Amino acid sequence: MNVGDRHFRTIWLNEDGRSVDIIDQRWLPHELRVETLKSANDAATAIRDMWVRGAPLIGVTAAYGVALQMRTDPSDVALDAVWDTLHATRPTAINLKWALDEMRALLRPLPEAERAAAAYRRASELADEDVELNRGIGRNGLALIRAIAARKKPGETVNILTHCNAGWLATVDYGTATAPIYLALEEGIFVHVYVDETRPRNQGAQLTAWEMAGHGVPHTLIVDNAGGHLMQRGAIDMVIVGTDRTTANGDVCNKIGTYLKALAAYDNHVPFYVALPSPTIDWTIADGLRDVPIEERDGDEVSLVWGRAPDGTLCQVRISPDATGAANPAFDVTPARLVTGLITERGVAEASAAGLKALFPEKAKASAA
Amino acid sequence: MNVGDRHFRTIWLNEDGRSVDIIDQRWLPHELRVETLKSANDAATAIRDMWVRGAPLIGVTAAYGVALQMRTDPSDVALDAVWDTLHATRPTAINLKWALDEMRALLRPLPEAERAAAAYRRASELADEDVELNRGIGRNGLALIRAIAARKKPGETVNILTHCNAGWLATVDYGTATAPIYLALEEGIFVHVYVDETRPRNQGAQLTAWEMAGHGVPHTLIVDNAGGHLMQRGAIDMVIVGTDRTTANGDVCNKIGTYLKALAAYDNHVPFYVALPSPTIDWTIADGLRDVPIEERDGDEVSLVWGRAPDGTLCQVRISPDATGAANPAFDVTPARLVTGLITERGVAEASAAGLKALFPEKAKASAA
Repeated sequence: MNVGDRHFRTIWLNEDGRSVDIIDQRWLPHELRVETLKSANDAATAIRDMWVRGAPLIGVTAAYGVALQMRTDPSDVALDAVWDTLHATRPTAINLKWALDEMRALLRPLPEAERAAAAYRRASELADEDVELNRGIGRNGLALIRAIAARKKPGETVNILTHCNAGWLATVDYGTATAPIYLALEEGIFVHVYVDETRPRNQGAQLTAWEMAGHGVPHTLIVDNAGGHLMQRGAIDMVIVGTDRTTANGDVCNKIGTYLKALAAYDNHVPFYVALPSPTIDWTIADGLRDVPIEERDGDEVSLVWGRAPDGTLCQVRISPDATGAANPAFDVTPARLVTGLITERGVAEASAAGLKALFPEKAKASAA
Repeated sequence: MNVGDRHFRTIWLNEDGRSVDIIDQRWLPHELRVETLKSANDAATAIRDMWVRGAPLIGVTAAYGVALQMRTDPSDVALDAVWDTLHATRPTAINLKWALDEMRALLRPLPEAERAAAAYRRASELADEDVELNRGIGRNGLALIRAIAARKKPGETVNILTHCNAGWLATVDYGTATAPIYLALEEGIFVHVYVDETRPRNQGAQLTAWEMAGHGVPHTLIVDNAGGHLMQRGAIDMVIVGTDRTTANGDVCNKIGTYLKALAAYDNHVPFYVALPSPTIDWTIADGLRDVPIEERDGDEVSLVWGRAPDGTLCQVRISPDATGAANPAFDVTPARLVTGLITERGVAEASAAGLKALFPEKAKASAA
């Protein structure tokens, strides 16, 4: 999407046809830094140290990492080694393993001399496919926004609340939860986005707000505590969030705090949608509360807050007593009963086993087999 | 309560019998600073600039402010002037006006020569009365904690979640929501407190965590997003929060985000209690959502986070893009249907007009008249 008057993706091949540029997201929203990846090790560092994050973007970065390796050494040994190196960076990201498997399966049968070119081609396709997937989600979500806009007076704004960053920065472009919003804006619908700060890592304040500001989407930052109050007052027309994993019966695992917003939406009859590319569906599990393990992260993410000091330096400040420990569960599970619908690239599914099965019969069948 | 091995109140008369010391809460949890109030103007500054906060503590500070003035000039003109000056500091705090009216009504009929001594005496009584009120709440809440502990195995911990700071720092001592916790600890019950960070002003991370650490209450800081997840996992036995105003039918206005925790408690069958001294009940209104105005505060409270930088300086860091505006509603309303009970100094009331009427028949009657 746009950053001011220039269009960006999160990752792109340079004109030299070899090196790959990425937005180094660690400095957002305060600095827009572009870094050049010149080797597979650079790609591994970018993933491991979270210069890039978001499952789809991690997958594409890994694919380019394989391509960078093939340019240097296209041997079988090098191919296996780069798979291992990249896979070890963020072992829990499903898209990472999927992209690496995809690349290795493609390259292994090829003569070594053809591997580099094929790898760059496939990495580029994966990037484009991600954009198309998100545009598909966008079109299906756009229909929901259109319907809300149609019930309003002309010129009235559709107010959308989102949590965390399921935006273009988490993907190659468009994002998942944000794709319907960007398409609605393109169509001239008046949209306004309430951006949850998303403690503890503040992905809403740092990334989603920066996306919205850069692309010109009217938006307002709020603390995570405020969404329920705004829904009580009728200030929110719909909620759209992303997901890290959705179970076969429609339970949604997403950034911590999503469940609280779903409860408030349900209590106030505000539609609560989850946007997801179908690879995010885990067909092997049903009960999200029972079966999805929740990552417990370092308490320092809670006790320290990163930002720009008055003198312009970027630093972390401690907000709590030194003697106080912190717990930091990173995700929670929103039960399907609280979810109005799952916006996928194929359409909007009811959040239930039947709803998902109807939209993805081949997946549901394979899983049951 | 204790700060390490020393007992503190938030405000006390010095040995000179004239000046009044307070804990300057602006520097907590990073520095414990005690300031001496030597004049009514000092007291006004302390209230206005939030060296002290919390409705009960504001009332007592104002009472001492009147006493300081009477020592200098006990005339009727000075009495009216100090009422005006102190009342203008935080015009929405109900206890402030109540304490000022109380002082003026007491002093006006007295000869000028007797006013200073009477004012100090009454201010000191108000401080002690606040402590007694909170101990009353504490005793009634303690019974609830005892009942939960009795259902556990010996040695098992009672896990209590609280939001914002309704602790001793908001009162003269004991606090409201924290009084049952401190009394449970005194009785040897194993308690552990999950402290909500409480964005945007972080009263949980800065004040409640500091209280707990100082008095030796086992506690863990969590982001506001985490409470729902912890309740889903059975990690919370009860919620106790304070309130800024409770309506005659039991709707609870409290720090923004309280409503989200009440929804999660209800969804997970976790008892949700509100601790309140009876003066916090507004007998003149019934429907909290309709009748309680919600203060909208400066967006900078959302965009800037205060803490201690690595070099030890205390500063604010900006967490969001310069171009992003923020909305900052300070309170929300939790409907009575989500509240398990109201812990008052007279007992635990059902959160309903009938429940409150049964406990405070004289108030309900006066209001209906």
